[in-house]
Amino acid sequence: MTTILFAAPKLWDDYAKTLPKALADLGVTGEVVLEAAPETVDYIVYAPSAPLQDFSPFTRCKAVLSLWAGVERIVGNPTLTQPLCRMVDPGLTEGMVEWVVGHVLRHHLGMDRHIVNPGHVWDATCPPLARERPVTMLGLGALGTACAQALVALNFPVTGWSRRPKDVAGVRCLSGGDGLRTALSGAQIVVTLLPKTPETENTLNEETLALMARGAVVLNPGRGPLIDDAALLAALDSGQIGHATLDVFRTEPLPQNHPFWAHPRVTVTPHIAADTRASSAARVIAENIRRGQAKEPLLHLVDRRAGY
Amino acid sequence: MTTILFAAPKLWDDYAKTLPKALADLGVTGEVVLEAAPETVDYIVYAPSAPLQDFSPFTRCKAVLSLWAGVERIVGNPTLTQPLCRMVDPGLTEGMVEWVVGHVLRHHLGMDRHIVNPGHVWDATCPPLARERPVTMLGLGALGTACAQALVALNFPVTGWSRRPKDVAGVRCLSGGDGLRTALSGAQIVVTLLPKTPETENTLNEETLALMARGAVVLNPGRGPLIDDAALLAALDSGQIGHATLDVFRTEPLPQNHPFWAHPRVTVTPHIAADTRASSAARVIAENIRRGQAKEPLLHLVDRRAGY
Repeated sequence: MTTILFAAPKLWDDYAKTLPKALADLGVTGEVVLEAAPETVDYIVYAPSAPLQDFSPFTRCKAVLSLWAGVERIVGNPTLTQPLCRMVDPGLTEGMVEWVVGHVLRHHLGMDRHIVNPGHVWDATCPPLARERPVTMLGLGALGTACAQALVALNFPVTGWSRRPKDVAGVRCLSGGDGLRTALSGAQIVVTLLPKTPETENTLNEETLALMARGAVVLNPGRGPLIDDAALLAALDSGQIGHATLDVFRTEPLPQNHPFWAHPRVTVTPHIAADTRASSAARVIAENIRRGQAKEPLLHLVDRRAGY
Repeated sequence: MTTILFAAPKLWDDYAKTLPKALADLGVTGEVVLEAAPETVDYIVYAPSAPLQDFSPFTRCKAVLSLWAGVERIVGNPTLTQPLCRMVDPGLTEGMVEWVVGHVLRHHLGMDRHIVNPGHVWDATCPPLARERPVTMLGLGALGTACAQALVALNFPVTGWSRRPKDVAGVRCLSGGDGLRTALSGAQIVVTLLPKTPETENTLNEETLALMARGAVVLNPGRGPLIDDAALLAALDSGQIGHATLDVFRTEPLPQNHPFWAHPRVTVTPHIAADTRASSAARVIAENIRRGQAKEPLLHLVDRRAGY
């Protein structure tokens, strides 16, 4: 029997069922426990909030498996001599693709007027096809690229923009300042998936919002400060922007008195576009335990000298 | 000279230019007319709204070419002895995939509670990932298969059911009566894309609705009679079905006094999931006329005994 110490008690509710299930799915016979004599522990599942700080008594432990992608709070611990693995959750990218594709299709199809239709209006006007609906993706990192490719698969003509030049199959890729203006010109749906840096703050502002097609839709699942809130509200009020669906904000939860909440052409989603999911994270942990038991190489092993 | 009777006068505005152009593009020298002596007609372009019901005088007619995918309103016509071809329009398939994927993602992500959120509730509970959301596709014809494949590409575990055995990559394919029960058991989202035949009427009824996971969502972009309306309303009221998004109805437009309009867990979309796009449909019609003239096999020929 393999003993797995779950040393992240605050997250137990999320993993109490998902981790044993993920282990069972891989045929690993292991017991997940919240407490154990250190010398009996085979694997430690770890989060930075864990009270556990001294790893030296865990003499049998084959690996410490972090639930977080960032391991900066454990990698320098001098008592940690066991292999350390970070979390690389495919669920985070998948969740982002689902949110972006879902809300692009929602606006493309004009769903809202059917979801809320108190007048029982039957207007059989068909939406255009996706191939006739230009979408612009600001940001072509791992998340932006995955979203752009999923939209291309559905026939949307996608323009991607990134600070440095990139090349994504099927996507018209632009970069630099002039590229940003070209990418936004005439766009009907714009998705902001840029990292938050001093250069990306207020990427969508009065000037850049004015470049889009009149009535364009803005989707922000990236970072709140990418958008100048006041400029967006003004563009919504003027009709230049037809709708904004926002998942991230400068202050979260979004304060009750923020005008986004009550604006008829703003949809607030509560920072749900991309989260580490217990179910998929549990599969990553379980796979590494399976590998450890089978003496196969561990995934996402941290290079202690590089620090990640 | 080939005489093509356009027997769908209400649609003439859409085809007056597109059909002659499509014929010319294929080098077919044909005349498209709205009226002709029956014995001079070589091909009939047909829609269910057409006043034409007696096909027996069209003694020279080589084929009846439907502008609609669904041919249930003509296939049983005893005067129809000519070959009948249904419409398989690439634009129609694309539009259907967009509607189905869009509404599957809408329900999967729980969008409605963000689109309508008068209490400004910030509940950051993440939805599960698509890979944890079983979807069942009833019908694996051209449309059902295309939708199933698009859902598989987004990681949804898709079970497909068809009357006759089919094989679609990445889809768990079932058939027959027992297969239907298996396909529905535990399904969280069910899409009905079956043809309308006497066998498929009320496929979703009190018994089959009860097989799905509690709170399951029903999407019907196929045909109104696939669902027993009263059974669906009862299942919605009991909570067995969590929501129904319906694009097709036994009577269209949906009558103002139909309970679907006012039901809080029903979304009505006005038969927009798949509309034949004149430009691409005209090319399909023209190609079949070219084939008929060249004595090549016609495309999308209807199996009269199966009814589709």
